[in-house]
Amino acid sequence: MASETATPPPMETLIALCKRRGFVFPSSDIYGGYNGFFDYGPLGAEVKKNIKEAWWRDMVHRRDDVVGLDSSIIMHPRIWEASGHVGGFSDPMQMCRHCKKLWRADQVWEILEDTDWIQSLREVFVGIPESQNIAASSRALLDWSKKVGKKKAPNLALVRNPEVTLSWLAEKQSDKVNVIEFIERLATEQFAATGLQTPCPACGGDMTAPRDFNLMFETKVGATASDDDVAYLRPETAQGIFVNYKNIVDTGRVKVPFGIAQIGKAFRNEITPRNFVFRSREFEQMEMEFFIEPGEENRETWYRYWLDWCTDWLVSIGIPREMISEDIHPQEKLSHYSKGTTDLMFQFPHGVQELWGIACRGCFDLSQHQEFSGKSMEYFDQERKERGEEPFKYVPHVVEPALGVDRTFLAVLTAAYAEDEIPNDKGKPETRNFLKFHPRIAPFKAAVFPLVKNKPELVERARALYERLQSRWNVFWDASGAIGRRYRRQDEIGTPFGITVDFDTIEKDGSVTLRDRDTTEQVRMSEDEVVTFLEEKLG
Amino acid sequence: MASETATPPPMETLIALCKRRGFVFPSSDIYGGYNGFFDYGPLGAEVKKNIKEAWWRDMVHRRDDVVGLDSSIIMHPRIWEASGHVGGFSDPMQMCRHCKKLWRADQVWEILEDTDWIQSLREVFVGIPESQNIAASSRALLDWSKKVGKKKAPNLALVRNPEVTLSWLAEKQSDKVNVIEFIERLATEQFAATGLQTPCPACGGDMTAPRDFNLMFETKVGATASDDDVAYLRPETAQGIFVNYKNIVDTGRVKVPFGIAQIGKAFRNEITPRNFVFRSREFEQMEMEFFIEPGEENRETWYRYWLDWCTDWLVSIGIPREMISEDIHPQEKLSHYSKGTTDLMFQFPHGVQELWGIACRGCFDLSQHQEFSGKSMEYFDQERKERGEEPFKYVPHVVEPALGVDRTFLAVLTAAYAEDEIPNDKGKPETRNFLKFHPRIAPFKAAVFPLVKNKPELVERARALYERLQSRWNVFWDASGAIGRRYRRQDEIGTPFGITVDFDTIEKDGSVTLRDRDTTEQVRMSEDEVVTFLEEKLG
Repeated sequence: MASETATPPPMETLIALCKRRGFVFPSSDIYGGYNGFFDYGPLGAEVKKNIKEAWWRDMVHRRDDVVGLDSSIIMHPRIWEASGHVGGFSDPMQMCRHCKKLWRADQVWEILEDTDWIQSLREVFVGIPESQNIAASSRALLDWSKKVGKKKAPNLALVRNPEVTLSWLAEKQSDKVNVIEFIERLATEQFAATGLQTPCPACGGDMTAPRDFNLMFETKVGATASDDDVAYLRPETAQGIFVNYKNIVDTGRVKVPFGIAQIGKAFRNEITPRNFVFRSREFEQMEMEFFIEPGEENRETWYRYWLDWCTDWLVSIGIPREMISEDIHPQEKLSHYSKGTTDLMFQFPHGVQELWGIACRGCFDLSQHQEFSGKSMEYFDQERKERGEEPFKYVPHVVEPALGVDRTFLAVLTAAYAEDEIPNDKGKPETRNFLKFHPRIAPFKAAVFPLVKNKPELVERARALYERLQSRWNVFWDASGAIGRRYRRQDEIGTPFGITVDFDTIEKDGSVTLRDRDTTEQVRMSEDEVVTFLEEKLG
Repeated sequence: MASETATPPPMETLIALCKRRGFVFPSSDIYGGYNGFFDYGPLGAEVKKNIKEAWWRDMVHRRDDVVGLDSSIIMHPRIWEASGHVGGFSDPMQMCRHCKKLWRADQVWEILEDTDWIQSLREVFVGIPESQNIAASSRALLDWSKKVGKKKAPNLALVRNPEVTLSWLAEKQSDKVNVIEFIERLATEQFAATGLQTPCPACGGDMTAPRDFNLMFETKVGATASDDDVAYLRPETAQGIFVNYKNIVDTGRVKVPFGIAQIGKAFRNEITPRNFVFRSREFEQMEMEFFIEPGEENRETWYRYWLDWCTDWLVSIGIPREMISEDIHPQEKLSHYSKGTTDLMFQFPHGVQELWGIACRGCFDLSQHQEFSGKSMEYFDQERKERGEEPFKYVPHVVEPALGVDRTFLAVLTAAYAEDEIPNDKGKPETRNFLKFHPRIAPFKAAVFPLVKNKPELVERARALYERLQSRWNVFWDASGAIGRRYRRQDEIGTPFGITVDFDTIEKDGSVTLRDRDTTEQVRMSEDEVVTFLEEKLG
């Protein structure tokens, strides 16, 4: 009955649902929010926890070749020199000379395209034949600059000095109108001297040339707060794994190939955090470094293995395979040490974007830490030695699947969002919003309802079942309101199963009804069968 | 058979075990470590995770009146003004004028007592009758200053200018020798002018007067890095709860009394981090704010309720009740807003210290945020209104149980550490170290062993059982070495149950042996019984 759709819901719909039902709030909401930070409310905290729990169980507990780690967020600052983050972990940034807002140079156009004023400016051109020059559309542009422009892009050169700008433009303009180029030229009166300029999305103003800006948050450790005390909030969890590699090899019983997995917070001082929890300044990662013998064939085998494993895992938590695609980075886009990177892409509300990066990092990281720390990262491969293979001492190579918890949250939410039509209490069809979360991911695994609340025997029986289930799972109790409304409240937060104790339960065979969220179908089963059923679904 | 002891093991024993078996490593170990930060290795990460999982399950999932939250570490800076942390969250700090090391003024003596040189200095006085004056012990002190002193406390005034200092001291000294006062006087030649001085534990040098030092780590959010952009790493998770209180009341279905629980990292720039993970700069908290109606009687009821709940919970994860005590803060030590605080104390290796603080915080925090944010924090109490009780609109009061994950880790480790004597493979008694972790807390719940590894049928049978258990729990597979040695390896890391598949399993009734870590007793049971047994123990 549920209508399947490949089109993701609009981001605004998800953001509104998240706030309304307590999945995600803007951080520091009562203080007007804090750009780039989010708080997960009661339901969101459960979803996030379930995602992490599922990953840890499948990645660490259910495998013999991966162990866990929980390293600190603040680490020795030399680590970030070795990893290259102090020198190179930066984005090109532009500042608006007028309103002082900052933008990522490589994202400004994307952001501009989303602004009201660029969209309305584009509309001015609709209907003007491509062959016409600027002069011919002057009147429409003058009109635009006095209305929309004045309000939404007050610092655009066209708005500040429309006549001057237009006559200049007409002089320089050749016969064809290129919209993007035209808009760029509107940004500055000095376009002839400074070349094309990207206008500020917020006010239309002229911007500085791009300059590199390091994304690591800095702090100072120790009480003197001198420059010697500078430390960084980790921008990724991966380096915590590399610097613990030696201790884990020395103290554990791991043998190549093996992996070290870690879940934890990371921080990036993003210039323009956006798209809800997709790109925030504080986020959580689930990273695993898989250490393997050097060699191209071996690398390709594991690379493909982890790409498939990761795709299957996403499917196992309820993400439809058809919403996932692979983006293979071309050779020229790879870092000098990289032997290949593929991103698993997902159809987010704001477009097809990176969800899970699987990267062949060679032995770059371990070699860097070997050089910077002076400690050997070589692995002694007893089995290779016994087989007479050279080298049997080597720095292992690495395949890294790196996934964000918050992006996974957004992906499961996007995939789960659904609408259909079902009959209401009076049998009339009504639109229903619901979340088709996989049972492993759903905040509540089931809700237990006594059919009526004024029959103590029935309520007690329901309560006993609720407490039995509660000792094992996160379940919800709801005794008030029409049963149809109670189902719908659970549908909206994605509870997969509704269990109702009714008169038949206490007067006849002790069976209860179990309603499926997605099909709304109900089946009767015994209380013991409910437990077995849930065990199977939550495995 | 296991010898119970109320004396905790020495901290060094625990630290060595943690490093040797991969529970805890110093952070950034290959770079020489980073003071105040720790990394949890494969086994420690599991223990920490089990502690958090047990707390969340018992505190959130198994209760109807507590919901979860996962708020950001970096929040709006105004929050820390409202909470009082910007103005008042500081420790008195002293700096050594010689070696520039920093010390917490209220901890220096405790630290001094642990130094080699203070201990050896005390020994100089052993045997000198109390009635003798300084002059009489001059020779021994001169001798000390040239040997131990020169090496361990080179900046102590007594060491730098022994004759001058001693003659000065002799002049001022009355008839009795007070060791502490004497040592204080040794720190400075100018003691007469500056009063008693605490020497620097690291070098014996003279120290500055104590001054307040704010413990919050600062960073800057946004790309301009101006003073307007200062933000803080949260020094506690509690404020994240208070600022989300309104959103949770508005969007959830909570009714007073109810609680909001949160687990997450917090950071304090401790001047002298020490005692292993007990006082570190980065740590994890499990805090719950329980919102109640105002009123003394109600408060006392819930205060006692949570004290008992917390004590019982500690016992439920394997901490012996006799190692826990209550420290009730006297009225004069309470903050102005506090209505009472009791710490649950635990017998750590370094002494009886705070493990869990249960505080009655009144309505201080919510009222502060109401004032600073301008948003009402009043709760509309429908039930009170219906009962005709005034006021039915009020800012709820709070009882807060605040527990550290790392301290709980240290507590369970301390309580679990045990030694006894058991017979080795040849029947000779040998000392055994083992960890008596509660099954909920143990990193591995069970280990599965094929008795021998060269009998494929037996290995396959064991492997099938292992995989069956692995689909539900974190279990360990070990096929190599004498069975006695395999048991002992698991004993040392606290695996509660060892399951061996032997010839009887494949040749007779299919039963396996299950060995209890603490008693070393073995019982035979079927594979199905093993599953049921583990289910019960891990409930």
